Amino acid sequence: MIQGKFISIEGTEGAGKSTALQFIKQYLTKAQLDVVWTREPGGTELAEEIRRIVLHPMSFEEVTPETELLLMFAARAQHIKKYILPALEAGKWVATDRFIDASYAYQGGGRSIDTKYITMLDEWIVGPIYPNLTLLLDIAPHTGFERAEKRGSEKDRIEHEEIDFFVRVRDIYLERAKQYPERIKIIDASVPLFAVENQIRDVLDDFIKR
Amino acid sequence: MIQGKFISIEGTEGAGKSTALQFIKQYLTKAQLDVVWTREPGGTELAEEIRRIVLHPMSFEEVTPETELLLMFAARAQHIKKYILPALEAGKWVATDRFIDASYAYQGGGRSIDTKYITMLDEWIVGPIYPNLTLLLDIAPHTGFERAEKRGSEKDRIEHEEIDFFVRVRDIYLERAKQYPERIKIIDASVPLFAVENQIRDVLDDFIKR
Repeated sequence: MIQGKFISIEGTEGAGKSTALQFIKQYLTKAQLDVVWTREPGGTELAEEIRRIVLHPMSFEEVTPETELLLMFAARAQHIKKYILPALEAGKWVATDRFIDASYAYQGGGRSIDTKYITMLDEWIVGPIYPNLTLLLDIAPHTGFERAEKRGSEKDRIEHEEIDFFVRVRDIYLERAKQYPERIKIIDASVPLFAVENQIRDVLDDFIKR
Repeated sequence: MIQGKFISIEGTEGAGKSTALQFIKQYLTKAQLDVVWTREPGGTELAEEIRRIVLHPMSFEEVTPETELLLMFAARAQHIKKYILPALEAGKWVATDRFIDASYAYQGGGRSIDTKYITMLDEWIVGPIYPNLTLLLDIAPHTGFERAEKRGSEKDRIEHEEIDFFVRVRDIYLERAKQYPERIKIIDASVPLFAVENQIRDVLDDFIKR
């Protein structure tokens, strides 16, 4: 019996995902919900090892799109079975920094892998363990890039891609939001911080009332 | 245009795969063939990192069957695209210590993953890059176990499984040999070394004449 709720947060380069995560944490803590926080790829010791391999800036040879996708799902299988599911079954809420939509967006959109393979892995590995709510922090890639550059933090291997890659990633995110409007809520991340936070608050107010 | 030939060597615990590999190396070298040697999981820098994770004796949490299978195919995708295919296209022969049949045997048989998922990954990731010849070193698991114990070498995570696991692994190997008799040649590995080598020589004599 799953009782907790499952929330994922998605967003492209420079959308302000980290800042939004802090805000969401504060919000849910104030609401006195028992939330555990996690991320993908990662969330268990083994899945974090996979993260290290798949996002490592460049020491390895070129990573094929198929390898990238399979590593993401290998980490996800571990994450779901060893972390997410036990937490939900214990009645906790789970909030994750990225989840399944990122595979469609980054490996399907960005890397142009045929969606049929992603859907197949999705049905097999994720199955019914789908987020109840997904917050999609949306920003035009060129705006996001400018912000990320100002921030100047170190980029992982995937973040090193060209702007066209992130245009394709965003397209898929928006397409999925249109396809699953009940679950995926688009947050316009191009506006000032307080206005981003107001949108997130509205979505969460609405969600915890359900 | 692929011109080289592709050979895989398979076998369970204690079948004498390492010794057989040495013999095959000598044979092919004598035949003056341009052979490169590789192994799975592994064969590229990244794939060897995946090997380290998936076979690591025990430092991590329990590895789910799905994670194990996906890591094997993640490594294989990299191995095929970055090592096997370029070598075959350069006209070389490629000989690998384990390949696709191991996934059916270990994760399908040993871990009881539904074959449909393995077939799907096989068709997608391996596609036409199938071995021209597979040597299957076959031995009853209890005999193999006794030998491995005498040898006393360190076991990886999968080699730590119980004998029932290897009975299931062997069953699938033999089933596949029956299904693909033209490609998979069973070598009875329970007989004395010279008799094992005679069988391998016969198979290779026949194969390089084709």
